[in-house]
Amino acid sequence: MTPRQARDGAQLKPVPHGLLQAFRAYESALMSDDVAALDALFADSPTTLHGDATGLLVGHEQVAATHDPRGGSAKRRLVQTHVQVIDEDHALIVAVTELDLGGRGLQTQLWARDPVRIEHGGWQVTAAHVSEPAPAFDSRIWRVVGDPLVSSHTADGALSGETVAVKDIYAVAGFAVGAGSPTWLEQAPVAKAHSSVVASLLDAGASVRGIARTEEFAYSLSGLNAHYGAPPNPKAPDRIPGGSSSGPATAVALGHASIGLGSDTGGSIRVPAAYQGLYGIRTSHGAVARTGMLPLAKAFDTVGWMTRSAFLLQAVGEVLLPSSPLSPVTPADVELVPALVDLATDEVATAVREALPDARTSSWEPSRLEEWRQAFVTGQAYQAWQAHGAFLETRLDTLGEAVRGRFEMARSVTREQAAQARAILAEARTKILEAVGDDVLALPSASSVAPTPADAPGVRDDTLRLTCIAGIAGLPAVSFPVRTATNRPAGLCLIAAPGRDRDLLALAQSLPH
Amino acid sequence: MTPRQARDGAQLKPVPHGLLQAFRAYESALMSDDVAALDALFADSPTTLHGDATGLLVGHEQVAATHDPRGGSAKRRLVQTHVQVIDEDHALIVAVTELDLGGRGLQTQLWARDPVRIEHGGWQVTAAHVSEPAPAFDSRIWRVVGDPLVSSHTADGALSGETVAVKDIYAVAGFAVGAGSPTWLEQAPVAKAHSSVVASLLDAGASVRGIARTEEFAYSLSGLNAHYGAPPNPKAPDRIPGGSSSGPATAVALGHASIGLGSDTGGSIRVPAAYQGLYGIRTSHGAVARTGMLPLAKAFDTVGWMTRSAFLLQAVGEVLLPSSPLSPVTPADVELVPALVDLATDEVATAVREALPDARTSSWEPSRLEEWRQAFVTGQAYQAWQAHGAFLETRLDTLGEAVRGRFEMARSVTREQAAQARAILAEARTKILEAVGDDVLALPSASSVAPTPADAPGVRDDTLRLTCIAGIAGLPAVSFPVRTATNRPAGLCLIAAPGRDRDLLALAQSLPH
Repeated sequence: MTPRQARDGAQLKPVPHGLLQAFRAYESALMSDDVAALDALFADSPTTLHGDATGLLVGHEQVAATHDPRGGSAKRRLVQTHVQVIDEDHALIVAVTELDLGGRGLQTQLWARDPVRIEHGGWQVTAAHVSEPAPAFDSRIWRVVGDPLVSSHTADGALSGETVAVKDIYAVAGFAVGAGSPTWLEQAPVAKAHSSVVASLLDAGASVRGIARTEEFAYSLSGLNAHYGAPPNPKAPDRIPGGSSSGPATAVALGHASIGLGSDTGGSIRVPAAYQGLYGIRTSHGAVARTGMLPLAKAFDTVGWMTRSAFLLQAVGEVLLPSSPLSPVTPADVELVPALVDLATDEVATAVREALPDARTSSWEPSRLEEWRQAFVTGQAYQAWQAHGAFLETRLDTLGEAVRGRFEMARSVTREQAAQARAILAEARTKILEAVGDDVLALPSASSVAPTPADAPGVRDDTLRLTCIAGIAGLPAVSFPVRTATNRPAGLCLIAAPGRDRDLLALAQSLPH
Repeated sequence: MTPRQARDGAQLKPVPHGLLQAFRAYESALMSDDVAALDALFADSPTTLHGDATGLLVGHEQVAATHDPRGGSAKRRLVQTHVQVIDEDHALIVAVTELDLGGRGLQTQLWARDPVRIEHGGWQVTAAHVSEPAPAFDSRIWRVVGDPLVSSHTADGALSGETVAVKDIYAVAGFAVGAGSPTWLEQAPVAKAHSSVVASLLDAGASVRGIARTEEFAYSLSGLNAHYGAPPNPKAPDRIPGGSSSGPATAVALGHASIGLGSDTGGSIRVPAAYQGLYGIRTSHGAVARTGMLPLAKAFDTVGWMTRSAFLLQAVGEVLLPSSPLSPVTPADVELVPALVDLATDEVATAVREALPDARTSSWEPSRLEEWRQAFVTGQAYQAWQAHGAFLETRLDTLGEAVRGRFEMARSVTREQAAQARAILAEARTKILEAVGDDVLALPSASSVAPTPADAPGVRDDTLRLTCIAGIAGLPAVSFPVRTATNRPAGLCLIAAPGRDRDLLALAQSLPH
């Protein structure tokens, strides 16, 4: 194909010598996964750019790090090539590609010539922007998605027009519950009825957009599902989405759905909400019926949801929560707990403090927090094995590494250890309820901003030390999105006595955002 | 936000005067849908480029034509801005955006300064490449889609690993049949069992990827569904997808599914296959059971499917078609019908002839083709009203204009007119079966390449004149993808006597491709 060459005014500039050869060399290197050749064709500069659907890479080092020799590039052919010549040493090339698998792509490259270089006549790419056709849908986020998947039969409900991403632990009639595990899904029966919370949302006019991914059996805070991949974190592209309600969180963060229906046992709403800049609520234990929800640890499991606005977070609460008299709370009534804020990284602690400039200070210093965390972990594990041990006993090898490790630990918890943990948790619950009293306490939703996948295991204990408090005492907890100084999302967590879910939802609406 | 400015080697080039002001003016014009301002910010040149997910626009005229004053641009804010300064008059700006609705976008612009212009310091965009986050899925193509939507319980069937886009006229257990009509869907019962053809594909190991869009009641050849929008045609972005099996066709062309299960009454497989460069088969009338398929006109309705390879087209046939003794045909046995080839546009006629350089020539000259077409239209309409009149009588106003026009005509067909049409069709059937005999005849699948939406009504009669032949006589027809001189997809259609589906599938495999 002869490239269509650009005119500049009426003056046709000749295509500089060697440019098209270099352009062809690039295509050829891409198609043959010649990583070394690709690296050499990008300018070795800290300002070199490469952008695609996964984000923008800045600097040759980042660009080179992502060149993948494992057949990473979709096979394609060029169907149009346009050259805009800027001068003898600079040109823009825009090319339309046709992918072997179907669909068209678009690629824009700024080429510059470095006269010192010999290879490819000195031509290198200083900036590249690549678009490829999207897949049918992102199966890291969704298992099934529709327009809608299930429609409401109410046109004028309180939630009419809203769309729900249902975490794959809730029954949706006509579908099996997948629990983030292909092995579980394979044998799971097709649900004959909706889970009660899905039924309530449909009754209120919301439609089900789809069934969204979860970490396996909801037993994780990372969202790094070993089978389906991690849903992206659109607010922090290089970081984990947070879990286990990872699919609903990403679906809401991307605007695919307006309500992310999830669950929270030890942080599975609050952590993804914080990592992805969403509003989220973990309801009081037992406040919202769990009929048709796959359990993880019944003593701690709660229904929760995430939204992009405090208004909708509350509107869903109006539908799902039992009605209760309100005890209005103003931001100035909130008590920050410095002992808990200090458990977070500096950037998160600062963001949390700045979100509540007028808050009072709580003198609560839970000195046995690490002991409580360990007891929570043990108690949760014991229950998780009671819920899933019969199935997993012979199938532990089907689990991803992190979740498998947790279930292996769970399997080893003795009755005595569980009883001991229960005793510690009972005492902890009393202390927490005392400390909370009639107040609303504020703490970080997670100990850090969303970590990279590699750093995820390292923050789990720190985050659990914060999130287990509401878990242990069955408290409602609302995560309110804040931003760090470097503009990363984090979460401010508001907790109160069990049953005060509606007070927290009203408070979240009144906070400046 | 201070733009990060690019280094060129170690030399920091200053950002040229006025560039960032112009860049900000562009963002502002975009956010306020100021079409005139946007037009003025693109260089008034035939080489100006604007590319996004819908394709590449070339020349200021095309670019300006798509600026949409109706709130077309997603609201967003800039989160990163990188400037690569080329010289005082040229710079590349790459920006990361965050959309209000969620997700991040990427935008690359080449800016050039025309010293003669006063506005914005003479700065204008000569090329722009915009990426926005994809929606959850493309609801023009799919109604529901999953990973999979329905899995096969066979791991080692003949079609294991294949994925099916099911046209929304076939029952899929657990879902209502939508028929491309929201009004129909609203009242349609949830299917308790799969349609027989879906069940057969599942039994053979294929999984159901999703339920794909159709034109309303499959009564169209355009695919321009008035409610859900037209699925894109990835092989010809400015053209219609073809219908009525439009969703399955696009799903296969984009690689979303490997098998597009559709139907063909008067061309609804052959036309989208031709327009989108796919392999397609309309089976012999009655050869494949239609249990669980919504009828359009039972005397002509047939099951059909589309694929990206002749191999898979045949493999599906092995599963769905009754076994029958083969009468092998070589390309040299095929008879081109010049009288039919000449009914196509020159480019299509040429492409069809070139695909069969060694074919013999048929002397068949169906002189009453226009009369046959009219009888087919009348007969199809009469049956369509018998199938759907009871429902549509009070709901004609819910249909899109083109389909409504057809059903209004259908409603006016009298018994006498229908009887007259049947008589003509009976005679036509005899003549066609005589003409075909034991041969395989070749003709164009459609009279033209895919037209633009505006031109779609104009080609319908011409295409029906060709496609009605197989429809009238219940012939199997295979559409084989060919390319015109300008690289547009078109279709070569092979027809034979009823029951010879497998011969045609084997022949399609042996044609050079």
